[in-house]
Amino acid sequence: MLIASFKDYRVVAKMKLTDAQIKQLETDGFIIIPERFTQAEVAAIRSRLPQIFSQHHEANIIERNSGVVRTAMGLHLRDNLFAALVRHPRLIGPAQQLFGEPMYAQQVKVNVKAAFSGEMWQWHADFATHHEEDGVTLPRALNLHILLDEVTEFNGPLYFLPGSHRAGDHAAKLDNKTTSYTLWATDHARVREMAERGGIVAAKGRPGTMLIFHDTLIHGSPNNMSPWDRSIFSLIVNPVSNAYTAPTRPDYKHHRNLTPLEPLAEDCLETYVNRLRAPAA
Amino acid sequence: MLIASFKDYRVVAKMKLTDAQIKQLETDGFIIIPERFTQAEVAAIRSRLPQIFSQHHEANIIERNSGVVRTAMGLHLRDNLFAALVRHPRLIGPAQQLFGEPMYAQQVKVNVKAAFSGEMWQWHADFATHHEEDGVTLPRALNLHILLDEVTEFNGPLYFLPGSHRAGDHAAKLDNKTTSYTLWATDHARVREMAERGGIVAAKGRPGTMLIFHDTLIHGSPNNMSPWDRSIFSLIVNPVSNAYTAPTRPDYKHHRNLTPLEPLAEDCLETYVNRLRAPAA
Repeated sequence: MLIASFKDYRVVAKMKLTDAQIKQLETDGFIIIPERFTQAEVAAIRSRLPQIFSQHHEANIIERNSGVVRTAMGLHLRDNLFAALVRHPRLIGPAQQLFGEPMYAQQVKVNVKAAFSGEMWQWHADFATHHEEDGVTLPRALNLHILLDEVTEFNGPLYFLPGSHRAGDHAAKLDNKTTSYTLWATDHARVREMAERGGIVAAKGRPGTMLIFHDTLIHGSPNNMSPWDRSIFSLIVNPVSNAYTAPTRPDYKHHRNLTPLEPLAEDCLETYVNRLRAPAA
Repeated sequence: MLIASFKDYRVVAKMKLTDAQIKQLETDGFIIIPERFTQAEVAAIRSRLPQIFSQHHEANIIERNSGVVRTAMGLHLRDNLFAALVRHPRLIGPAQQLFGEPMYAQQVKVNVKAAFSGEMWQWHADFATHHEEDGVTLPRALNLHILLDEVTEFNGPLYFLPGSHRAGDHAAKLDNKTTSYTLWATDHARVREMAERGGIVAAKGRPGTMLIFHDTLIHGSPNNMSPWDRSIFSLIVNPVSNAYTAPTRPDYKHHRNLTPLEPLAEDCLETYVNRLRAPAA
């Protein structure tokens, strides 16, 4: 099922971004691609979550107030479907197209933001953490998301600050106080400046919608007080040539394994989709 | 400047709701009236806030995490402009039109929801608190709001559950844990049921927009992580015939004074508007 070489995947049109999408990613720092994954594929991905969330596992991060899972990490090492998903051509294809060099799986997670209790993520750009904590030199990592629920204005969508990825270094400070997951939060003055200039865009869409955004794009998300869950799969890939130099955080926060991700076939989730369709024995 | 009797205000068309508005209020439990107050009036109201917020006053309730003012209460007893505003015909006119009997000012406040730090208000219907805490018999109070900032999806708008005011008693329990202001929060199962049936409506609008909603309407609001403040003036009026029977909360949470609010003239804020326009001495 493996495609033979890095070059082969380039012929599969569905994996590639259009010129317009590449241009928008350069301009805004993010793109939103509606329903890039099918509802059947999303259902297969979602079907693995209850078992993962129920594990007492250090890579399951818990909401401070409600005690429910906020984010479940290291998923490709914990579940076969996610081992395939991190090699999915619709994720790896665009990454390879943009960077043209081998990439490794830096972080693999599902952010949950549960109904009624999901807490906010402070404004931040991932690179602040990757640089300060992991010793990554350049902001070349790419964040690839798949919405696993319908995301609306009410259930805690990601907020992007368009163009903020091109504004140079963002002042940031370590925030281990206001939310349940420590990160380098962007200075409020910078957030205000970027929002006044380019507004805020909420990344909404049907399940299966894909988001791609740059390592220096400022983003965050509000709490979810709606009765609707909001789960998102997130894969961060980074060029092997730009790997961590300070492996201080746990492996599930920045994986040590630098093996390049080689794209699988377009139908690589089919086994799991079919398993869900099969009648109960 | 006082209108002579309760009957006189009925002739002033601008104070009255249309039949369509009354019908919508009956059906949905709320109405949103764009820019019912002018930008000059809003500016005059806003100009009083810095001084009020800077007071060390028991009726200034502080956000648990950030320490900024979350809500400032009892305002008609603290500032002359607000003493006029609670008698404004565009607020009292509709209330009298709907109830046709004398109303008193039960609660008078500005809810702030400051940029970056404004915290959520849990789902609740005001009547749960008015009934349980204050011994109000029937859900006849009316909540009259004026947006003092532009309210968008990003700065913590009120969320309404349409039709929830007609669903009978809402199960609720006292919440003095998850937010900075104790209230009777609506049971999550009820919120889910109402949202599945009627959706959620976010009350957005330009400054000066007016909201009217019923005492049993379920509402709440998410945190404000945007760089934009979101202040709302709120007046709760209640028929004198339906007054509190258990005056246990502080006066600023439910005022003891049952003097009926008699509407002032349409231009009753003009003094304050002009004062703002006057050149500095």
